[in-house]
Amino acid sequence: VLEGAQGAALAGLAERVRELTEAVVRTAAAEEEIEAVSAQLASLTERLSAARRENTRLVRIDPGGVPHVLGSPVTGAANPIAPPVEMYAEADGTIRGEFTLSAVYEGPPSYVHGGISALVLDHLLGMAAAVGGMPGMTATLELRYRRPTPLGVPLTAEGRLTRSEGRRTWADGRILDPDGRTTVEATAMFVTPRT
Amino acid sequence: VLEGAQGAALAGLAERVRELTEAVVRTAAAEEEIEAVSAQLASLTERLSAARRENTRLVRIDPGGVPHVLGSPVTGAANPIAPPVEMYAEADGTIRGEFTLSAVYEGPPSYVHGGISALVLDHLLGMAAAVGGMPGMTATLELRYRRPTPLGVPLTAEGRLTRSEGRRTWADGRILDPDGRTTVEATAMFVTPRT
Repeated sequence: VLEGAQGAALAGLAERVRELTEAVVRTAAAEEEIEAVSAQLASLTERLSAARRENTRLVRIDPGGVPHVLGSPVTGAANPIAPPVEMYAEADGTIRGEFTLSAVYEGPPSYVHGGISALVLDHLLGMAAAVGGMPGMTATLELRYRRPTPLGVPLTAEGRLTRSEGRRTWADGRILDPDGRTTVEATAMFVTPRT
Repeated sequence: VLEGAQGAALAGLAERVRELTEAVVRTAAAEEEIEAVSAQLASLTERLSAARRENTRLVRIDPGGVPHVLGSPVTGAANPIAPPVEMYAEADGTIRGEFTLSAVYEGPPSYVHGGISALVLDHLLGMAAAVGGMPGMTATLELRYRRPTPLGVPLTAEGRLTRSEGRRTWADGRILDPDGRTTVEATAMFVTPRT
């Protein structure tokens, strides 16, 4: 579990890398400039690598009891590839997510890559199963793409546990565009490991 | 379409950002050091942003005729969040992918996030449809997780177009671990836009 100040520093660092990543996919800098920046990045990587954790699972528990893995590629404030999606649990167990995706996540021109929508929904439905007391591994995931998901605008997602049977749990969810239209629907089945 | 030297410079830059990203999720550097590195990153981002392209779709056509979007979040050599997955088409239209995923892509401890497997397979099956002459948007994607996909080892993926009906095309694929065992299977349906 991470302390506040160190967590904030790591989250700030990851946010700088997100901005850098977006600059990389859009830069029209000259070749020499790109090479100069590359060399400086290598030396910053070396500085960060001077002290390394083997464990990448820094966890912060939020007031609602939801565990956040800070290194998660979906919700992790400390993982530069995570948008990150802000996820929280409502009192009835519904999980809500809020996020905006830059050109870094582009599939078809100006739209979110379909696999990125799958990534967000897999994570959100997994959290719905976990918050419902049935944490598990994804066994099946079905996605139905209803319309393109736009880049650069505030998106929401929601999901909930629908039923459990023994160690198997089903959850449903979707992504919505800023007009409240469903862009992608998902159903997942999770299997809770025997402990 | 990108020229060789500029493409190589951008790919090198993205690779430096990938190494940086991995260092971020593992660093145990002191808070002051993290803040110093963050400040330097902000100034490098500013240098890259001095000249920007509005178009993020730099495309390279490989000898087999497969278009590679260099900014793709899956296969793009110039996109720092892409592993990147190396994908190529065989003579019979089968698409093969080769990749290794670092802790940046972690879901369950020491395994690949299920949504990252979905991202790779969505892209690979989309390429199978495109190479088969039916490029389209994903309409449905079904994933069956057979066993956990390990981090840090060479993975392969394969997929092929199975049938077409009007503007609809189906494709099947899977991810294999280094022992050749299937970890995730996928079936997708794509719809080719009317032009």
